[in-house]
Amino acid sequence: VQPEVTPELIRGAAERIHAMVRRTPLMTSRGFDEAAGVRTLFKCENLQRGGAFKIRGASNFLLSLEPEELGRGVVAYSSGNHAQAVAMAARIVGSTATLVMPRDAPRSKVEATRAQGATILTYDRLRESREALGARIAAETGATLVPPYDHPWTIAGQGTCALEFLEEAPELDALIAPVGGGGLLSGCAIAARSLKPEMRIFGAEPELANDTYLSLAAGHRVEIPVPATIADGLRATSPGQITFPILSRTVEAVLLVSEEEIRTAVRFLLARLKILVEPSGAAAAAAVLHGKLPKNVRAAGVVLSGGNVDLDTLARFL
Amino acid sequence: VQPEVTPELIRGAAERIHAMVRRTPLMTSRGFDEAAGVRTLFKCENLQRGGAFKIRGASNFLLSLEPEELGRGVVAYSSGNHAQAVAMAARIVGSTATLVMPRDAPRSKVEATRAQGATILTYDRLRESREALGARIAAETGATLVPPYDHPWTIAGQGTCALEFLEEAPELDALIAPVGGGGLLSGCAIAARSLKPEMRIFGAEPELANDTYLSLAAGHRVEIPVPATIADGLRATSPGQITFPILSRTVEAVLLVSEEEIRTAVRFLLARLKILVEPSGAAAAAAVLHGKLPKNVRAAGVVLSGGNVDLDTLARFL
Repeated sequence: VQPEVTPELIRGAAERIHAMVRRTPLMTSRGFDEAAGVRTLFKCENLQRGGAFKIRGASNFLLSLEPEELGRGVVAYSSGNHAQAVAMAARIVGSTATLVMPRDAPRSKVEATRAQGATILTYDRLRESREALGARIAAETGATLVPPYDHPWTIAGQGTCALEFLEEAPELDALIAPVGGGGLLSGCAIAARSLKPEMRIFGAEPELANDTYLSLAAGHRVEIPVPATIADGLRATSPGQITFPILSRTVEAVLLVSEEEIRTAVRFLLARLKILVEPSGAAAAAAVLHGKLPKNVRAAGVVLSGGNVDLDTLARFL
Repeated sequence: VQPEVTPELIRGAAERIHAMVRRTPLMTSRGFDEAAGVRTLFKCENLQRGGAFKIRGASNFLLSLEPEELGRGVVAYSSGNHAQAVAMAARIVGSTATLVMPRDAPRSKVEATRAQGATILTYDRLRESREALGARIAAETGATLVPPYDHPWTIAGQGTCALEFLEEAPELDALIAPVGGGGLLSGCAIAARSLKPEMRIFGAEPELANDTYLSLAAGHRVEIPVPATIADGLRATSPGQITFPILSRTVEAVLLVSEEEIRTAVRFLLARLKILVEPSGAAAAAAVLHGKLPKNVRAAGVVLSGGNVDLDTLARFL
């Protein structure tokens, strides 16, 4: 039986993963505030270990396993940041990791995962099912599958991001995070509301990957075709079974951003804040920069969720 | 009579400028350590207000002036980061700034300076003397000239960077900073030695802009032609009158880096640490990355001195 995602579960995760993650810095930019028309604070998970928030969930998951389970190894499927995080967490706790990655995953993410000592299996995104591949490996080796978002341990780990954010910036009245499968946003929503019950929660999705937007509008989980957005970390085709009910009861709105709005945000963050944020990681910043928050928000907390982008891909943006 | 640059002068500067500068974060990277072969800590002055360490010296200088002097305004000449810092400091303390900038200064630096409300005068780097222009403006308007490096107030302000660095990382046994006119390195050397007398001090210069390297070798200030390095903030043609004697008695060696080594460091910092560092700001990191420190250094403290680079210039690097 899986535990419910409660504030206590997230607090426990924060203690558990303390030594395995960075307390990432907050940043502000007068130029961004002026362009966006709202005071904005950024939580820089692009500066997190492994370059993304994913290490929070992966390390909480692995540290919640029994020693004998860790001994049999872990397996995960991911286009990149989750793979790297699982590989890193496995290395640190002395387990072994097998990662199932799409053949067209960003090179930097594949290389960074391999550098952590993990075994990598690639698959054809259009012909093969990563879920089936992951399940087969788990069955054959006894390894434990580490879900990228749809598990209470993963969600609780991701939620620790908002605990840190609110501890340092209690003045926030809105929290905005990108939504792929919804693990980051659902964990952050529960954590933030536990510290500040009136906190307004917003998601940000590419227009091309609007599965959570559509699902919240429909009142049930909607499945979309694999989206072609440049935000490769937000290509989930539907919100999770566990994340969706949490999002349904906490999220005020999902803000949609165009591909060009995402690119503009990546450029702005690079030129003005001097930090590299990947397209997926910049979706929430893009929404705020382009004025999509309600006008009565006074202090917006934006999660910059990752920074792993190939430099040749980046060069095409500039 | 100008004061001597003492640890007390730097400590006074730290108190004075406290509200006007950011306490910039330290960063580390396992990947960098492995590539460089030495444990390295980075002081991220590229994340400083105005995108460079220069605000430290400029704000200390302006806050050391009398109110009537501030009322007559300030003037400075600079290819960019010092200009922006003086403009920003003037805006904050309610003074007015006139900046003399070369016509070919990076566009981002000119725009950022103008955005601070300063008056900008451009000059032809090959035909006109910025010193003469600055002096004429000062004489005509009664404005005070804010030297970019060769003044005790400026040097003391820059030195506050090392106070913060050593407070947070007392384990450092070597400090490496880029050298243009030498204000940052001389201030940091005095500050660092006051906290840790055995600290080893290194400068980093482009091979193309080796005026301090040559001057230390010669035992007196050597003047070189205007260098063509991509590190536009390190194009000083000789070390300062005040900075040179300080560098002479504190610096163990100036490490020279090629243009390609600088570019490689900019790329590495962007891809792996997810931060944007301008070529001048990456010179010290380039030296460490390419193994130019003595092999017995155990913990290297590298100042990343600035991050202001046009994105189209950056795109050519990637």
